[in-house]
Amino acid sequence: MKIELAKSYGFCYGVKRAIDIAEKNPKSVTFGPLIHNKDEINRLANNHNVGLVESLDEALEHDTVIIRTHGITKDRLQRLKADGKKVINATCPYVTTPQQIVEKMSQEGYTIVIFGDEKHPEIQGVASYSVAAERTFTVLDESELSALPLGAKVALVAQTTRKPDAYQAIAAELVVRVQELRVFNTICNATFENQEATEELAKKSDIMIIIGGKNSSNT
Amino acid sequence: MKIELAKSYGFCYGVKRAIDIAEKNPKSVTFGPLIHNKDEINRLANNHNVGLVESLDEALEHDTVIIRTHGITKDRLQRLKADGKKVINATCPYVTTPQQIVEKMSQEGYTIVIFGDEKHPEIQGVASYSVAAERTFTVLDESELSALPLGAKVALVAQTTRKPDAYQAIAAELVVRVQELRVFNTICNATFENQEATEELAKKSDIMIIIGGKNSSNT
Repeated sequence: MKIELAKSYGFCYGVKRAIDIAEKNPKSVTFGPLIHNKDEINRLANNHNVGLVESLDEALEHDTVIIRTHGITKDRLQRLKADGKKVINATCPYVTTPQQIVEKMSQEGYTIVIFGDEKHPEIQGVASYSVAAERTFTVLDESELSALPLGAKVALVAQTTRKPDAYQAIAAELVVRVQELRVFNTICNATFENQEATEELAKKSDIMIIIGGKNSSNT
Repeated sequence: MKIELAKSYGFCYGVKRAIDIAEKNPKSVTFGPLIHNKDEINRLANNHNVGLVESLDEALEHDTVIIRTHGITKDRLQRLKADGKKVINATCPYVTTPQQIVEKMSQEGYTIVIFGDEKHPEIQGVASYSVAAERTFTVLDESELSALPLGAKVALVAQTTRKPDAYQAIAAELVVRVQELRVFNTICNATFENQEATEELAKKSDIMIIIGGKNSSNT
């Protein structure tokens, strides 16, 4: 039996960075799972005394709170800071970017369209940075666009782990629907490279085993 | 024999407006053909004493110069004004829009991509408003994009008479090539409606006759 590894795999930059931050901050908790990988979260708990809380109320009981790679909503982050917590931000910089874009573009009057899963914490965080919830929409494909009151100016961002071709289809549909479309390429290269390597390896393999979190969009 | 007319046809808003302006300004010349329709240009010359000059030198010999619907280059317009000519601007407002967008976006540092025919007067005019010729490119389809040094930020405009689906294909390609893409829908509705009506009529006709200028992008 021949075992071949994909050309690109493993933890991405943002995950490695978050683990590094967590290891350097023992006696802390992460608000929500730091990354979508149970083994790694257990290792951080056992070897580095980094706990996990799931709600804001629980987080407020601790002194040092680490923000997960996927980010959290703006109001929760503000609440933690307002309550004097030591907040350590392990949000992936590639997630911080769409948060900032959504805030700025919504301030400038653009309707916000987010390509992603509205139940995913990253997207809940990104969407929360809009200053105008009534003109902020999350879609999974271009068929959802026709029902939306888009207005004349739209800014489009994508969840970091989405596929580029699906993003292109949404952008193409918007081009003819609005007067001005501003598309920000917020899809992460690491995800894209892993997706390409997976496709390539799948073509020449009998069986593929993908090791990762079942709740992870990266996986 | 049954003769059926297309649902949408005839002179567009910009052409009607330009003819109206010309009729109200006898003893003038248009710099380049006012519209791409020889019969109408002859009518304006014979009935309204509106002449036609083809070069800047010729235009400078006259007192009143009408700017064609397609617009002219920024430097030529400035030269006519600097020489004290009475300049009557019959540029279609739908052409003025991409001129202004190209000027503003190039000032803000965007690379300019124009979807259109670089030999068409409208596109020569639109492109001339860029303050950075070295990062201003005109393309006819998405295959031309790979050779261009686009940079991180691109603004995209289209010739008013182009087809929406071809514009969508160019935008989709740019989405994954650059960090930020700003697409302005500068395709004219009138053109689009005539194109749709033509397609519809073609499906149910044995023979179609299209009356228009052979050098007209509208036709």
